[in-house]
Amino acid sequence: MSGPLLNALRDAVGADQVITEGDLSAWELDWRKRFRGKALAVVRPADTAQVAAVVRACAAHGAALVPQGGNTGLVGGSVPDTSGTQVLLSLGRLNRIRAIDKANLTLTADAGCVLQTVQEAAAAQGLLFPLSLAAEGSCTIGGNLATNAGGTQVLRYGNARELCLGLEVVTAAGEVWDGLSGLRKDNTGYDLRDLFVGSEGTLGIITAATLKLYPLPAAEMTALGACDSMAQCVQLLGLAQARLGAGLTGFEVMGRFALDLVAKHFPQLPKPLPGAAWTVLLEQSDGEGEQHARALFEALLEQALEDGLVSDAVVAESVAQSHALWHLRESIPLAQAEEGLNIKHDIALPVSRIPAFVEQADAALLERFPGARLVNFGHLGDGNLHYNLQAPEGVVADEFLAAHEAAVNALVYDAVQAHGGSFSAEHGIGSLKREELVQRKSPVALGLMRAIKQALDPQRLLNPGKVL
Amino acid sequence: MSGPLLNALRDAVGADQVITEGDLSAWELDWRKRFRGKALAVVRPADTAQVAAVVRACAAHGAALVPQGGNTGLVGGSVPDTSGTQVLLSLGRLNRIRAIDKANLTLTADAGCVLQTVQEAAAAQGLLFPLSLAAEGSCTIGGNLATNAGGTQVLRYGNARELCLGLEVVTAAGEVWDGLSGLRKDNTGYDLRDLFVGSEGTLGIITAATLKLYPLPAAEMTALGACDSMAQCVQLLGLAQARLGAGLTGFEVMGRFALDLVAKHFPQLPKPLPGAAWTVLLEQSDGEGEQHARALFEALLEQALEDGLVSDAVVAESVAQSHALWHLRESIPLAQAEEGLNIKHDIALPVSRIPAFVEQADAALLERFPGARLVNFGHLGDGNLHYNLQAPEGVVADEFLAAHEAAVNALVYDAVQAHGGSFSAEHGIGSLKREELVQRKSPVALGLMRAIKQALDPQRLLNPGKVL
Repeated sequence: MSGPLLNALRDAVGADQVITEGDLSAWELDWRKRFRGKALAVVRPADTAQVAAVVRACAAHGAALVPQGGNTGLVGGSVPDTSGTQVLLSLGRLNRIRAIDKANLTLTADAGCVLQTVQEAAAAQGLLFPLSLAAEGSCTIGGNLATNAGGTQVLRYGNARELCLGLEVVTAAGEVWDGLSGLRKDNTGYDLRDLFVGSEGTLGIITAATLKLYPLPAAEMTALGACDSMAQCVQLLGLAQARLGAGLTGFEVMGRFALDLVAKHFPQLPKPLPGAAWTVLLEQSDGEGEQHARALFEALLEQALEDGLVSDAVVAESVAQSHALWHLRESIPLAQAEEGLNIKHDIALPVSRIPAFVEQADAALLERFPGARLVNFGHLGDGNLHYNLQAPEGVVADEFLAAHEAAVNALVYDAVQAHGGSFSAEHGIGSLKREELVQRKSPVALGLMRAIKQALDPQRLLNPGKVL
Repeated sequence: MSGPLLNALRDAVGADQVITEGDLSAWELDWRKRFRGKALAVVRPADTAQVAAVVRACAAHGAALVPQGGNTGLVGGSVPDTSGTQVLLSLGRLNRIRAIDKANLTLTADAGCVLQTVQEAAAAQGLLFPLSLAAEGSCTIGGNLATNAGGTQVLRYGNARELCLGLEVVTAAGEVWDGLSGLRKDNTGYDLRDLFVGSEGTLGIITAATLKLYPLPAAEMTALGACDSMAQCVQLLGLAQARLGAGLTGFEVMGRFALDLVAKHFPQLPKPLPGAAWTVLLEQSDGEGEQHARALFEALLEQALEDGLVSDAVVAESVAQSHALWHLRESIPLAQAEEGLNIKHDIALPVSRIPAFVEQADAALLERFPGARLVNFGHLGDGNLHYNLQAPEGVVADEFLAAHEAAVNALVYDAVQAHGGSFSAEHGIGSLKREELVQRKSPVALGLMRAIKQALDPQRLLNPGKVL
């Protein structure tokens, strides 16, 4: 293929890094295979200057750009549309760890660094980069920041946003904003950093970031508790927070049917608290060591038993057993996939409202869709549930979804909204939830967002059709 | 006074809450008495709807608005200009604690609530709101958020920004954005919250906020260490972070001359480590209790002595003694004031660069201004120094400042910039540091900020002449 835009892109990054032929599905299709687009070309710049040159070339030719990291998102945010006119900008070659500053507890990395590479670079210095999520072996830090990724240690360390001190961003005009600050305090003007974080590539292209590191804990330990009700889970969370403070780094909940699915499809896995209505997984990180962590856990769980918050509990005896307990939690989405197509929700609520929400939403779903099977699990410590629905047994899942997915979503999101919650806790908007955004955000919020988009990307070249 | 704007304001808030006569200096003059303006009127709305009505009245008449909380800022951000045309919007009557959600660990308060009132409301429920700073008895939470206030526990809990989950804001168009979310995760569109936080009333008027609470620690304990050099202070910080983790809630440094000034002007105060080149104050918050905290402190300081990082150390024996040690730290600005007019800097640096910065800036200042007396103290754990200069002994301070303040600032800020630092760590820009912002931020950053200001406040009615 040729043409003035393609020639300009070849000038920007070299002809061999502008790919128009062959199988482009690694870039054009998301990993859940729910979104397939068609790119004009896949462009693979080597550094920030080349990213800026690509953006200027696209701006000069009025071409839209879709930035992409590891392409592991869940909402179609990194896939081009089907027009064949959008330029797919892959950040994968920007993959250097630029610097580690041990005394400042910071690490600066290119946007295309794989999350696990960042974690390992920190660990090699005896430090912790706490962002951790299922896709960590292939997602990139730029994508994590563009989507404000969550994961399993948000309770203690916050989302990707809270782990970021500074950014380097290529603007819609193809200029480079060097905001790679390693400062904990900097009140010099508007917070540009947090505007780009979570904007899903629609306001600028993140090319590098300076991230917070933490001392590695001396010990990590996991425990499980069996609760009879979601209300008890929430009370246990309060007790654990009061007793463990910042030592409580994870608090996950798993409903009985979620673990039944795991047992059905992965029968080799342990069943530590069979029959529990709700199984809670607690993770503790301790600065002093395993003995101290165990004593704290045992005292906490003894108190919880005494207070009637749990009917049974186990503390992992070893690191291997801790991993096995986490593995149970992480197997739920895989067991769901084995069971068949399902409807997923990534919702957040004030923790205090979760018991009432679950009761109300469960009842409404079962009334409307008798036999529907509810898979409820997630990061209870952050108020974040993956509140999913599996078609009734014996019903063909594809047909059920085709007929009812929209109605299920509306029912769930209405209940979420009634309880002050969010219809997208950690996955973002992308193209999947654009309509929800328009319907469920206030006109004032939408007006502010549109004004910002217009101000920073007046040509609407950056990831159009995503978020807004 | 009368006129169509004043009539519209009286319609909005009631005639008795539009003040044009008498002594308005409580609103027109900042507390350090460095900025005096002249307002058209002081307007005191009672609630969010009245704030919105005031903004609409001003927009209709093209009048500028200056929002004000406790008027305790240090950079002239809440004082009107001298034109007599700006409307001073005092948020002080919006002073309700709206809600406390113990299970969700959140508190929602009107913007005009005094910080100490918020702290006390949390404490009454056995919870902690950790923002803490010298003006807490009179500053307001709205002002704290508008300026992204820092204070003494940033090391553990972050700035005001990190303590805020949701906002209610009146926009420049006089609409109300209800973003009062109590969610820990919410990835539904751009981060409007963090754009308003720290924008000093130039993008919108914060009328309420939902804030994070924490469990109250079981014990708080303070220790002092004597270091020979700033490099040792930084190494001690690293050791304390590795050993205490999130339990380390404060790490302050005080230079010898700063404490000499305290001893001179407040001779009744204790002198716990006389002669130390640098005195470090460590604060620990512990979930288990005093005995545990003491054991951790003693082990830490023993290690520090062994490693040669400190030459001497003391752990407070009681809460009263802890308060006395903090009182020393808090007396430094007062001792400086007693000593005479001085030049203040609120700077931040990567922690790793602080020793080199101090060495370089000290040498440059003393070469250029022989006999200048350097008062160096601050929140070392956050990389935030109050790096101040007192005129040479025997020189009239007023004259020295008049002649040299600009040159001193340029020298200090040049050195800060050379080390990757910030010329405003926690105080903001206001009108005092506007020129620094223009000179020292990159054109790309300034362009982005101006585009955002234009998008959200096209009439330039909100706190004009501040920040940008």
